[in-house]
Amino acid sequence: MEALPPTERTRLKRLPQRGSYDRETVYRIIDGALFCHVGFLHNQVPFVIPTLHVRIGEQLYVHGSAASRMLRTAAEGVALCVTVTHVDGLVLARSAFHHSINYRSAIILGVAQEVTDPDAKLRVLHALVEHVVPGRWQDARPPCPKELAATSVLALPITEASAKVRPGGPGDDAADYALPIWAGVIPLKIVTGAPVADERLMGGVEVPEYVANYLLPDTRRDSDGKAGGTNLR
Amino acid sequence: MEALPPTERTRLKRLPQRGSYDRETVYRIIDGALFCHVGFLHNQVPFVIPTLHVRIGEQLYVHGSAASRMLRTAAEGVALCVTVTHVDGLVLARSAFHHSINYRSAIILGVAQEVTDPDAKLRVLHALVEHVVPGRWQDARPPCPKELAATSVLALPITEASAKVRPGGPGDDAADYALPIWAGVIPLKIVTGAPVADERLMGGVEVPEYVANYLLPDTRRDSDGKAGGTNLR
Repeated sequence: MEALPPTERTRLKRLPQRGSYDRETVYRIIDGALFCHVGFLHNQVPFVIPTLHVRIGEQLYVHGSAASRMLRTAAEGVALCVTVTHVDGLVLARSAFHHSINYRSAIILGVAQEVTDPDAKLRVLHALVEHVVPGRWQDARPPCPKELAATSVLALPITEASAKVRPGGPGDDAADYALPIWAGVIPLKIVTGAPVADERLMGGVEVPEYVANYLLPDTRRDSDGKAGGTNLR
Repeated sequence: MEALPPTERTRLKRLPQRGSYDRETVYRIIDGALFCHVGFLHNQVPFVIPTLHVRIGEQLYVHGSAASRMLRTAAEGVALCVTVTHVDGLVLARSAFHHSINYRSAIILGVAQEVTDPDAKLRVLHALVEHVVPGRWQDARPPCPKELAATSVLALPITEASAKVRPGGPGDDAADYALPIWAGVIPLKIVTGAPVADERLMGGVEVPEYVANYLLPDTRRDSDGKAGGTNLR
């Protein structure tokens, strides 16, 4: 997979050794996350809103219902910054200064267009639902035309993006390693709890296998055995 | 605690019944989170970056090292949007359309100032470390003047903010409750793993109690027994 050429806007200024511009790294961070934060301008003020996303090939799609503000001013597309963040651990160094966070993050910049064609939109919503809960789309009642019209989706081409990853243990100043201070990492991860059935569930409806054995995107394996895969690409 | 007056920028347009402008709700969402996403403008382009935060009274402080881009253009303050998001569950409705996410999010808008006074900065860094890992500050080597100078912190007054919370089960259309489709919630939460000691740890250094019994901010209790409390206010 070719690298994403760094631009003035995506080139990492701080700790550039943590940066990466290869598509595989960026895609893995995107695909492994359930949700993202979308930044956009409204009346020259920056807004940041959490929303769902899915990648199909080289396009990143974000669910736009939370983005009504963006769309109101977006006939010719809207400049977005989509940031995807995984926080993997708290890094306790011997010095307060070197305390850090283990994370994987990707930033995708560009101009997004609304997906208006109903067939294209349906394909994106299918991918979005399957990204969040693989196997769910075939069970759920599909959107009727009115629901489809009421759902908005934005498409952002992944052409200008960077990843930043901080793994491992603390990095202390040489002299500080002689201090009798505990140092290390407290790992963090997102986990699922037992499914809670809706109290109005019809009698006799069993918990589907894809719910009972649900895996978060970051823990799924694709056909190559790599993490972060989804079925729809 | 008085309410935050909604402004044109914070008044919720979509699903306003999920919104709240009371300080207690906003504070609880802020205090319960380890990190936030900060949106700002750089050359008229919106950027969104994850970073650490801590609240002290009515001020929200964000760690600025990730924010070098913001500060370069910010002599008279920088317009920020700080968004704090907790994702609590995947909501599987009977219809694809009503699939949702359970979440608690807060958005704080305003103009942030850099904290330049060394004593004030030290106080914020103390609070920041204690917010992430209560008990850690007294153990870690404190910042020397050079380290303190190399760390940047931005202060954002919490005057324009809103919270949005989506709890509970799916909300389906009346007719869909008769469908034999499983519906419910897959709960999500962040958990910690067992602490991993640095391989260069000095012999004889034990895991401190505050690491062994670490609680994430969202699971801590303040003196009133409420969740999301921290010691430093």
